Amino acid sequence: MRILVLGGDGYLGWPTALHLSAVGHDVGVVDNFARRRYDDELGTTSLVPIASLARRIAAWRAESGHSLESYVGDLTDPVFVHQTVRRFGPEAVVHFAEQRSAPYSMVDQAHAVYTQTNNVVGTLNVLFAIAELDPAIHLVKLGSMGEYGTPDIDIEEGWLEVHHKGRTDRMLYPKRPGSFYHLSKVHDSHNLEFACRVWGLAATDLNQGIVYGQETEETRGHRDLLTRFDYDAVFGTVLNRMVVQAACDHPLTVYGSGGQTRGMLDIRDTVECIRLACEHPAAPGEFRVFNQFTEEFSVRAIASMIQAAAGDGVRVQTVPNPRVEAEDHYYHAAHSALLDLGLQPHHLQDTLVESLLAIARRHRSHVDPSLFEPSVQWRSTASPVGPRASEFVA
Amino acid sequence: MRILVLGGDGYLGWPTALHLSAVGHDVGVVDNFARRRYDDELGTTSLVPIASLARRIAAWRAESGHSLESYVGDLTDPVFVHQTVRRFGPEAVVHFAEQRSAPYSMVDQAHAVYTQTNNVVGTLNVLFAIAELDPAIHLVKLGSMGEYGTPDIDIEEGWLEVHHKGRTDRMLYPKRPGSFYHLSKVHDSHNLEFACRVWGLAATDLNQGIVYGQETEETRGHRDLLTRFDYDAVFGTVLNRMVVQAACDHPLTVYGSGGQTRGMLDIRDTVECIRLACEHPAAPGEFRVFNQFTEEFSVRAIASMIQAAAGDGVRVQTVPNPRVEAEDHYYHAAHSALLDLGLQPHHLQDTLVESLLAIARRHRSHVDPSLFEPSVQWRSTASPVGPRASEFVA
Repeated sequence: MRILVLGGDGYLGWPTALHLSAVGHDVGVVDNFARRRYDDELGTTSLVPIASLARRIAAWRAESGHSLESYVGDLTDPVFVHQTVRRFGPEAVVHFAEQRSAPYSMVDQAHAVYTQTNNVVGTLNVLFAIAELDPAIHLVKLGSMGEYGTPDIDIEEGWLEVHHKGRTDRMLYPKRPGSFYHLSKVHDSHNLEFACRVWGLAATDLNQGIVYGQETEETRGHRDLLTRFDYDAVFGTVLNRMVVQAACDHPLTVYGSGGQTRGMLDIRDTVECIRLACEHPAAPGEFRVFNQFTEEFSVRAIASMIQAAAGDGVRVQTVPNPRVEAEDHYYHAAHSALLDLGLQPHHLQDTLVESLLAIARRHRSHVDPSLFEPSVQWRSTASPVGPRASEFVA
Repeated sequence: MRILVLGGDGYLGWPTALHLSAVGHDVGVVDNFARRRYDDELGTTSLVPIASLARRIAAWRAESGHSLESYVGDLTDPVFVHQTVRRFGPEAVVHFAEQRSAPYSMVDQAHAVYTQTNNVVGTLNVLFAIAELDPAIHLVKLGSMGEYGTPDIDIEEGWLEVHHKGRTDRMLYPKRPGSFYHLSKVHDSHNLEFACRVWGLAATDLNQGIVYGQETEETRGHRDLLTRFDYDAVFGTVLNRMVVQAACDHPLTVYGSGGQTRGMLDIRDTVECIRLACEHPAAPGEFRVFNQFTEEFSVRAIASMIQAAAGDGVRVQTVPNPRVEAEDHYYHAAHSALLDLGLQPHHLQDTLVESLLAIARRHRSHVDPSLFEPSVQWRSTASPVGPRASEFVA
């Protein structure tokens, strides 16, 4: 199958491209390197050094014998999107190419507008290119479990049968997202559902939980194949960040009570979920939604697990919650669709936490502990981010 | 009360500004004249000639003794928005300043992206300006009944109590909008709800039905005070367009079966609803939604009413539906909140249709019947619009 991976240079896009290539698909990779530029802006860097896309592709060819076509450009450029889809001729498009950090979207007006414009316009351009060139192309789009918020009823997979005043309809599940980033995904979902309805497109919206881990079977082969490991408060996901804190004997920072419960999954399951979605496409006109996670944990429970694995002396420190969110709430979310397609989940175990700790300890001399601190405040309309002036004085 | 009307040069923004001014509020008007530019692009024009904003404001001062402050600029410019809100210092902001045509948003990729970017970014900038300058400012935002689509259950006013698997939550009403324009309003609604939740803003989202009519008590006073009268298939609303067809002895064009049922209201009720919303603001942190319409009609029923009023020989012509929409469907929508605030609706009567017919007949020599034809096809990703090449040959 010919599969085009948008955002294929990112934390998850790159391992996904390798996994799809490894199982025999013809894979193209599209990226504008926005994620690498955010590092310059924020004064952050991947804890594990990553190679350029060109070196990555060369290393993969050397390791596996498989080629990856690459296209460098921006999805908000409709001509680039149209030409890239036409040239590559995909049967499936996997779309990771969005600004993916909730705190980044909450920095200020410019970051909120950038996030929503970049994500929504990029996705619109992909929808138009598919509709114009080949409506049979299956779009596999990354959404987020954060689109749902924390409703007081069970979360279903994208759609809900609503009973009201003696009548019934199958409707999009009502969303209450917690950041301008999560809102952009909600906007995307509505645009996708419309494109399926009006143009007969086939789309799968993968509402992904919080991903942890850094290695997949394919990235382990060579250091130029490794993917990012972010631990800063803006782009680092909760488990990965806490593991790095533990490796540095830094307290594990828990926001508020830590009762926030989220669906989570191993990076190795992410790449497998994408493969399953591609190989079992949505039908023409179908807007299909899968909740892509394997287990639910509270932030408190994650901290305890890491404490247990890291051993002696790792403390948990409660910090005032920079976000506006419920800290103790009902949470029960369906996630059976991917299991039905054959997903064999990696459940979070001590061994995974220990292997992550080992990676973090190997690179601990490069950790900048000031980046653990939550710099973006939800209640403020403008939070200072980026390298501190003082760091450049010395 | 100091009220800033965004989009105050448009079809409804202008009469609203006058109505608020007439009852004694201090009114500012903001516009970028986008609506006048769409006329250039599409080769259309208001059937009733309209004056420049400067002449309008001068005429209103002469007629009423009231001044209107005006600010010319674009809401997608965050500096302009911030400075305008700071300078005027409103207690309420009424936000009409969005691209408002469903067909216009469906022309092609560029029009879809323009509509969503213009509307969503403009509204984000308004939210940021209010949050930064004075979170007590009440935002009265124009939404659309078209955000709901035609669900098989009753439509409520923005929120729905959802019962599911023995549990209950109050959630945003699930939306299934019918165009990239309507989608932009859904995106806005989600962004607004979030801003209320996170920053404690007070917002009223007015999901307005289809407006008919052209005169209000205030616009009647002088020809420089008149508002637009659009009859083209892109910007003309259904009743106004059919009245002009009848005035020209042109068949009334009904899309498909004509069973499409919609909430509708008189332009005189629009301006009164806005006054009521402003004078009874939402509470801090409240995202309040009103369904702003007074009666439900099918397209078929409207055509019959106009036939009856216009008399002898006006035919109804069924044309293939350019839109993708249900043509026969359940429709029952709540709309009690504005009545509870004291709205005294003008119900659609023969006299209103007759007075509209009289206006249309007065200007019938300026009608271009080619503009009645639906030029934008929902199923196509690119519809030709604008002046035909042949019109410039002669």
